[in-house]
This record gives sequence, C-alpha cells and structure tokens, in this order.
Amino acid sequence: MSSFSFTVQARDGAARAGRLVTPHGEIETPAFMPVGTAAAVKAVTARDLVEVGAQIILANTYHLMLRPGAEVVAGLGGLHGFTSWKGPFLTDSGGYQVFSLAGLRKLDEEGVRFKSHLDGSPHMLSPERSMEVQQLLGADVIMAFDECPPYPAPREAVDEATARTTRWAVRSRSAKTRDDQWLFGIVQGGVHLDLRERSARELVALDFPGYAVGGLSVGEPKEDMMRVLSHLQPLLPESKPRYLMGVGTPEDLIEGVHRGIDMFDCVMPTRNARNGQVFTSQGRLSIRNARFRDDPRPLDPACSCPTCRTASRAYLRHLHLAGEMTAATLLTLHNLFHYLDTLKEVGQSIRLGRFQDLRERRLAGPRAEVPEP
Amino acid sequence: MSSFSFTVQARDGAARAGRLVTPHGEIETPAFMPVGTAAAVKAVTARDLVEVGAQIILANTYHLMLRPGAEVVAGLGGLHGFTSWKGPFLTDSGGYQVFSLAGLRKLDEEGVRFKSHLDGSPHMLSPERSMEVQQLLGADVIMAFDECPPYPAPREAVDEATARTTRWAVRSRSAKTRDDQWLFGIVQGGVHLDLRERSARELVALDFPGYAVGGLSVGEPKEDMMRVLSHLQPLLPESKPRYLMGVGTPEDLIEGVHRGIDMFDCVMPTRNARNGQVFTSQGRLSIRNARFRDDPRPLDPACSCPTCRTASRAYLRHLHLAGEMTAATLLTLHNLFHYLDTLKEVGQSIRLGRFQDLRERRLAGPRAEVPEP
Repeated sequence: MSSFSFTVQARDGAARAGRLVTPHGEIETPAFMPVGTAAAVKAVTARDLVEVGAQIILANTYHLMLRPGAEVVAGLGGLHGFTSWKGPFLTDSGGYQVFSLAGLRKLDEEGVRFKSHLDGSPHMLSPERSMEVQQLLGADVIMAFDECPPYPAPREAVDEATARTTRWAVRSRSAKTRDDQWLFGIVQGGVHLDLRERSARELVALDFPGYAVGGLSVGEPKEDMMRVLSHLQPLLPESKPRYLMGVGTPEDLIEGVHRGIDMFDCVMPTRNARNGQVFTSQGRLSIRNARFRDDPRPLDPACSCPTCRTASRAYLRHLHLAGEMTAATLLTLHNLFHYLDTLKEVGQSIRLGRFQDLRERRLAGPRAEVPEP
Repeated sequence: MSSFSFTVQARDGAARAGRLVTPHGEIETPAFMPVGTAAAVKAVTARDLVEVGAQIILANTYHLMLRPGAEVVAGLGGLHGFTSWKGPFLTDSGGYQVFSLAGLRKLDEEGVRFKSHLDGSPHMLSPERSMEVQQLLGADVIMAFDECPPYPAPREAVDEATARTTRWAVRSRSAKTRDDQWLFGIVQGGVHLDLRERSARELVALDFPGYAVGGLSVGEPKEDMMRVLSHLQPLLPESKPRYLMGVGTPEDLIEGVHRGIDMFDCVMPTRNARNGQVFTSQGRLSIRNARFRDDPRPLDPACSCPTCRTASRAYLRHLHLAGEMTAATLLTLHNLFHYLDTLKEVGQSIRLGRFQDLRERRLAGPRAEVPEP
C-alpha cells in the first residue's frame, strides 16, 4: 500500500491541486483520464498519449471481460503487460455498461446476469466477480461494483439502487485481495440530495481511499448535476481523491473542479473527434464546415498540440470528408490535448490562487461554433 | 533544374544503389514509396512516416483532382503546403485510376472523359490536363499521361495503347511548364517484348529524366513480369532512375532491383495491414489467427519498428478483432517499416557487393504463414 498516496498541495476555494501516486506512475490532479474502452484509446497509440500529456488511462471492465477476456489479459501480465501503455490505469466496475449496453439483464441482490452485446453469450457481474475481473486486469485504481439507475427513474427505484450500491460496496471491499490496487467507492443517489448524502455518509464510513460520484451526466439537467456536486463537496473527505465519472465538456470539468473534484473521464474528446467535432480555445467547430475548405490555419492558433503544429483546417477537413482514419487520429490528438491542457492550466491557476479568474474567463468565453473569420 | 540529380553510386550486376535529389529532399535508392492516395498514407501520420524511414510519398492525381480538387491544393501551396509531409512527393498521371475506378469512360486520341466514382460528375483527363493538375499539385516527380491496357487484352489493343502512350508522352512533355518538377515517361507494351522494346526506344528518344515501367502487376503471371523487366533492363538509360509502378511483395521488389529498378510503389503494405496481414522476416502472418491470442511476442522478433518495440501479437490481434483503428495504424507502421527496411538492406548489400547473397537468402526464405511455434 505504501506505493499509493494522494496529497492535496494547493487549494483555491473548494478547488484542489494535488498529486496521486500509484505503482505505475504519478498523476497531477485535477486529472483527465482518456477512455480506452477496449484497452486502447480509439484512433491513437500509447506513444501519442504520452505526447499529448496523458498520465492515466481508463479501461472498461465490461468490454474487456467479454473480449479478449480478463483471464487472457491476466496471462499477458495484466493491462500493463497486455497493452503498450505503461503508466497508471483505472478500470470501472462494469456496472454502467451492463445497464447501458448489455442485453436481457436480470438484476437481483446477488448481481446482474446479462447477455453480451457482441455475441449474446451469458455472463454475470456481481461485486465479487467485478473485483475478480478488475484484479485480473490489474489497474492501479479499481471501482466498487455499483448500480447506476437510469434518468429519469422513480425516487423509490433510485433509493433502492443507492442502498444496494452501499451493500455491494461492502461486498466489493471484502472481495478485494490485491494490495497493489486502490479501490474507490461510488456515491449514487441520482438528483436527490438526501439520497446522495446518505450514500456519501455510508461510503465514507467504509473508509475507501478515494470516492467517485456516479450516476451523473445520464440525462439530468446540468443544474441538477452541479447541485449534487455542491452538496457532496463538504461530505467527502478532504484528504482523499474525488472522481466524477463520465463528465463532460471542458466547462463541466472546470465546474467540477470548482466543486472539489480531482479526476474526470469522458468519451467526449475522443468520440467527438471521430465525428469531426473539435474543441478549441475559441469554442467548438465542426471540421466538415464548408468554410474550412481553403483555411490554412491550424484548428486552434493558440494550441501547441502535434496536430496544430503540422496540419491546416483545410487538410483536416479533406481527410475527414475522404473518410481517412488519419483524420480521426489527428482530431483525437488535438481534442485530448485540449482537455489535458485545460486541466493543467486549471491546476496551475489553483496553485497561484487564480482559479476563479480562470473559471470566469473560460465560462464567459465562446463555447459554440467558431465565428466566421 | 539544378535542384534535381540522380546518381548511381554502386552496382552489383544490374542492381544499383544511388541517390535521387529533389527540391524537397534526397531519396536513397532503391526506394519504396508509400501510397498516399488522398494526400495521406492511410492510418498513419506524417510524423509516423518520418519515423519508419519513408523518404518520398506517392499521391494519386485522379483522387486529388476529384477531392478536394487540384485548384484547392494549389491554393494552399500544393501538396507540400496542403499536407503535413514536407519531403518529396511523386504523383501518378491519373491514367491508371481512370481505367480502373472511374465510370462511363470514353477514350479517344484527345484523352479520356469519365464520370467520378464519388458523385458521377463529369471530368476529363488528357496529357495537357494531367500536366496541369500535376503542376497544380506540385509533386517533385510527375508522370506522363499514359494508357494502361487491361490484362488480358488482344495484342492489337496493347499495340494501339502503347503507340498512343508515346504520342501522349510527347504531348505531356510539351504541356509541362514548371521547371521545379521532374517528368518521367512510362513504358507500356503489356507482356509483349517487342512492344515493350518499341515503347522504351521511343520514350528514351524523348529524353525524359527518368522512366517508369507501367502496365505490370495487372494480373499477368509473375514470370511474364520478370521477363519484361529483364528485357527492358539494357534498353533504359543507365544514368537515369527507373520506377516500377504498383509492385509488389518484398520478394518482387528484390527481383525488380535485380533487374535494374530503383523505385517502387505499392498499396500492399498499407492495405494488407488494414486487413490484418503482416510481413515479417519469417514470412507473412494473419494477426486474426487464433494461435496469437496469448502470444506475448512482437510481430517480428527481428524487427525494430515502433510497433514491434511496444506491442505484442496478442494485443494487436485483440485490437484488430475489436475493430480498433489503432490496429490499422500499428500494423501499417510495421509493414511500411518492413518494406523500407528491406530496401535499405538491399541498398547496403549492393554497396558491399553482396546483393546476390541477400537475394538468394530472401527468396529461399519463408513467404507464407509463420509456422507454429
């Protein structure tokens, strides 16, 4: 356990800048974790990820248990032996994907039986099986098995799922045997502040080394998400890392940091890149737009990523419209750099006591399509 | 014109090692040119190409005139301004793709009218228009507009196409006005040695700075291709570069060098990579093969490419089967490195007078699926 630590090094209001140390490397927080669903971040290589400044990658337990199988990954040395990424990994519990992707689910107190979305084969996830799979995968940070209710859902259903999440957290903790992994608990409770508070208090009593906030960004209004985060902020231990799962836009990340969050993951920068949607310091743009046909400028003249250093909007538009995979690679590199660089800048602003200035500037800035030149 | 030169620096039999100097850089010969159809080599970035040792890229005139349009490329500074590849480019004449891809072709002495395979829009290519387009694209080496007959074809049709190719070569030469591009003539004649000889003599009389051999690898038996190359070898000027278009396997490249060829292009390393087909020093393998599921070894233990330094067969198989674009990237990098490295080794062997040793060793070696471990 001594190879793990989390230190808050600076505060500005509720915002924190710190350092998470894991057996496979250190992560400066606030941190963004690119999503590597199938043990690879789509369209880029591990070398690319190092170059754009990634420090930790998220991999999906659900996908990897189905293909190639957790036992196959374990036989090749876990995620660190199997993949080309040698830095820290985090795996999710599998719960979220079971509820959003798998077919023919059957949920009871034991766990969830489901059919693979790939081939219909039957599988089961429970706290014990999720821990077994995540221990076979060998990520540095692993997640307790939780039930993530849909939005909207009746309050009673959310109440039930939240209570079960606590019971499953107890079982997850008991089932974990490896001491070179940190297990985080997941707070549920939907948009109900009292359920969120109960969930947080129950999980904090279990003394996990870190806490995630799950069940947000599932369709609820953004104000509700922010209300939940504000409410949870004083309830979660100051000295432990806090991870907001599956969120969001660069502005959402800044608002999360403002409410005490240290870690984020989201498919938005990578998925949007493959669809030609680009994040820039001047707002978002769609590379398909006809006005970029002859535009010799980089995606973002203020950006120093490998794509902005070497490719024009005109060239990227051409590659995207021609269906060239290279377009996905170059736009993914840019979007990831934009996310990672945004949180780097956020961290620096916290250390300098200027986070609120940055927050106000970024949130007042353009977010939509880049205006005409 | 002074920024161009070609020097044969060493010979071993008919095999030659030399240097081609262009306005955008030098190329060691024998050289392999990765194919960048749409002004990008599929699945890799320009930085990747530098890393695997590419020195010149081929781009397709037909594809680029249709999308984004030669005038668009010219407005952005030609291929060197438009793309991220700053080294030498070669463009083909467009003739081959017109005959293999376009719809509703109408050929006469003036040129070819055709409909775009993308949107059915009408276009025309002729020696004059091909030169205009290739000058707008601005590659270092450009090709005369030729007629490439199919295989098999009646001898009279091949005779006719070969004679027309000479007349079009004269018109191509007259239409070329930029003096910072080298224009190569293309020898046609199918598998008929007398037609090949006539074509070569007529084109050599036109005094092009380099010569390509076209119309091979279009379905004819490999022995016929080798017979044509052996016949042409003494007919083409010793002091000028010779380019075998659209060929082939690594063994074909070695056999081409043995018959005096200096330059090659082929989609095989890149296209095969996207299909999971890999070239190694021990033969070819399909990464889909079930026996690689748990194989921790690199694709080729003798290879030092970026992929073999960082990824196992098991991981690459998983990425390929999961449909991850990264698989295409990593396998393309490997296959290109294998091709480029093979010709580097060939060049060194020529300089050391050991080309025949290398040729015999490589041609005696395994070519098919890697044997079971």
